[in-house]
Amino acid sequence: MSVAWKELYARRLEWMTTSVIRDIFKNIQSTEIISLAGGWPEADLFPVEEFQEICQYVLREMPGPSLQYGVTDGYPPLRQILAEYMTERGMPCTMENIVVTSGSLQAIDLMGRILLDEGDTVLVEEPTFLGALQSFKAYGVRFATVPLDDEGMRVDMLEALIARTRPKFMYLLPTFQNPAGVTMTLERRRQVVEIAAGMGVPILEDDPYTQVRFAGEPVPELLVVDMARYPENAAAKSYIKGDVVYLNTFSKTLAPGLRVAWAVCPPEIAQGFVMAKQGTDLHTSALPQTMAYEFMRRGWLPSQIEGIRKTYLQRCGAMIEAIEAHFPKGVRFTRPEGGLFLWVTLPEGINTVELLPKAAQKKVAFVPGSPFYANGGGENTMRLSFSSVPSDVIREGIRRLGEVIKEAM
Amino acid sequence: MSVAWKELYARRLEWMTTSVIRDIFKNIQSTEIISLAGGWPEADLFPVEEFQEICQYVLREMPGPSLQYGVTDGYPPLRQILAEYMTERGMPCTMENIVVTSGSLQAIDLMGRILLDEGDTVLVEEPTFLGALQSFKAYGVRFATVPLDDEGMRVDMLEALIARTRPKFMYLLPTFQNPAGVTMTLERRRQVVEIAAGMGVPILEDDPYTQVRFAGEPVPELLVVDMARYPENAAAKSYIKGDVVYLNTFSKTLAPGLRVAWAVCPPEIAQGFVMAKQGTDLHTSALPQTMAYEFMRRGWLPSQIEGIRKTYLQRCGAMIEAIEAHFPKGVRFTRPEGGLFLWVTLPEGINTVELLPKAAQKKVAFVPGSPFYANGGGENTMRLSFSSVPSDVIREGIRRLGEVIKEAM
Repeated sequence: MSVAWKELYARRLEWMTTSVIRDIFKNIQSTEIISLAGGWPEADLFPVEEFQEICQYVLREMPGPSLQYGVTDGYPPLRQILAEYMTERGMPCTMENIVVTSGSLQAIDLMGRILLDEGDTVLVEEPTFLGALQSFKAYGVRFATVPLDDEGMRVDMLEALIARTRPKFMYLLPTFQNPAGVTMTLERRRQVVEIAAGMGVPILEDDPYTQVRFAGEPVPELLVVDMARYPENAAAKSYIKGDVVYLNTFSKTLAPGLRVAWAVCPPEIAQGFVMAKQGTDLHTSALPQTMAYEFMRRGWLPSQIEGIRKTYLQRCGAMIEAIEAHFPKGVRFTRPEGGLFLWVTLPEGINTVELLPKAAQKKVAFVPGSPFYANGGGENTMRLSFSSVPSDVIREGIRRLGEVIKEAM
Repeated sequence: MSVAWKELYARRLEWMTTSVIRDIFKNIQSTEIISLAGGWPEADLFPVEEFQEICQYVLREMPGPSLQYGVTDGYPPLRQILAEYMTERGMPCTMENIVVTSGSLQAIDLMGRILLDEGDTVLVEEPTFLGALQSFKAYGVRFATVPLDDEGMRVDMLEALIARTRPKFMYLLPTFQNPAGVTMTLERRRQVVEIAAGMGVPILEDDPYTQVRFAGEPVPELLVVDMARYPENAAAKSYIKGDVVYLNTFSKTLAPGLRVAWAVCPPEIAQGFVMAKQGTDLHTSALPQTMAYEFMRRGWLPSQIEGIRKTYLQRCGAMIEAIEAHFPKGVRFTRPEGGLFLWVTLPEGINTVELLPKAAQKKVAFVPGSPFYANGGGENTMRLSFSSVPSDVIREGIRRLGEVIKEAM
């Protein structure tokens, strides 16, 4: 006899999904294909030489913090410098507000771990980040979805939806949304925060792209708007009361492989995160934490980000120009002011999943939009990434994709 | 109005616990105290210079794998070299058997994520690793416990306990057990594996200390015994059928702060681990993975381990000599052949939690044993660590602790 593994699986396994995108792409991998599908930052912009210098330094000067077991909430000097960074950016914090996580995805999972019981509902934008949907699904939840337009989430639909579905929390990407690339207006942000507090529904604000703004003016984070609601925060110069858990990361500014991100929340919630994290990976890898700390301490982050902005500005511009030149009329697309993605909506009736093999034949790839819809839909949409492909290659890729779309129309 | 966070918490939060040990030690932190409490490897043995050289190399030669997003199952060359390493150690594997995890604790959590529903039972040794208990508790489980003696788990009690409690799986630390320091005999290993297969209860074999054997002869892993049961494995020269998920780590050989460990299991189970991991941290930090790979590729692991063995052999010897000299009659203790810990049992009626403040007054610390008991008990036990304190300091610490124990008897 032997173990019948399948009969032992937890019910949770039925709720889980692997990346739909990965499955879609299994059959169309080729080095000749121009991929506008990836969600990856440009590897040529990784600060390799700076990291080499910093690695030598932190291994020599702080071998203990870089290599020994660490505390679950994160390397304390990193938490301290992140608190100062958040304070400079208009969100006064202390290190008690900061939990270092293994990528923002871990924070998304920890939020689920703390708040989600089977049968609960999570409110998300439509479309939204696929990784978050995967994380939440493992808790056996339902989704309530609010569509986006060019000003971000349709806040006018929010109250009724909350009243009907009673979500445990909202997961929102207000700035350079993944996948749609749109940014929520300040007016809508104020409304969302008011509704959240009024109806008792906390917000998980995922903000991985905020530093990569290459056009337009910054819009205050939901966290900024929320903190201002409670005079306790201004008095304490810290985030002691509020309704937002805010997530940011080094994945889009330094390097995603580090897996170093941070959550900002009231200390009580931070303690919940720490308790949940203690049972999952004990602490985030130490050397990447001391490296990120040292990078910030030396003041190298701004110039690093500046280089990324310039590149993405140029590439996003090249993509938009090419779309205007090569896509047929009747195709709509978003015009992001930052981030990695733009979002294309084809006329109704065209299915982008069916379009993909045809695009692959013409040696160009995109991500079909429907997997980003929590409750189905979006068959005529696609996500295009401009982050990791040079401008001239983007132009050629869009030209090819234009042909594919024209043939389908 | 604002969000009433506490009312939103998942039921899971009631099951979770923070580290009892951390709570116990909150009030007795002092640099003057000789701590025999820590479970940390000796930081002076971290291969800092080797890491410096390797960091330069991997950042220069493989910046992509070190810094870009990676695949969830781990850096493929690392999985490949780990498969070869496992094969050399008598457990023929291919990379399809290997999943890289963010510390073994993550693998423990993923095992729970795949197999545990609320109300399930996990069978553990008594005492056992506290971190595993914390991880499993988050799934709302009960524990069935099997006591240890000097030959490891009391296998004679196993069948009846399984029949009564129907556990989803067994979590076992057969070699240099944490916290008890004992090693299960080969005869018992054979019995455990037979019972597991016969009764359909898989084994999670946690083997973090195996490389740190400083005395005696190696005993085959449960995985070795299990693989031999199925001729399919020998035919395929791979682990395609079996009842054991095996965990090993670089935490005790290279450095725990890397958070790089690996699970070995049949491919089907590996896929379950990958699906669960995809929603938690996407992948283990990349740079520590390429560093560990390069360390192995250069063949530096054996000499690194040799240094650790020599140091721990000496320190364990110093601790045992000092115990024999300074502890009163009636105190029993284990004599480990490897690992970081030994286990002390005082006469019944002495409570080591109550002893701890008295020890702290004499400037020595240990870990009380009761938190390692999943279902209570062990009030007269304590764990002593010899890994991170020099021998002369160990002698003085044991002398002081002997005084404390004598006063209590």
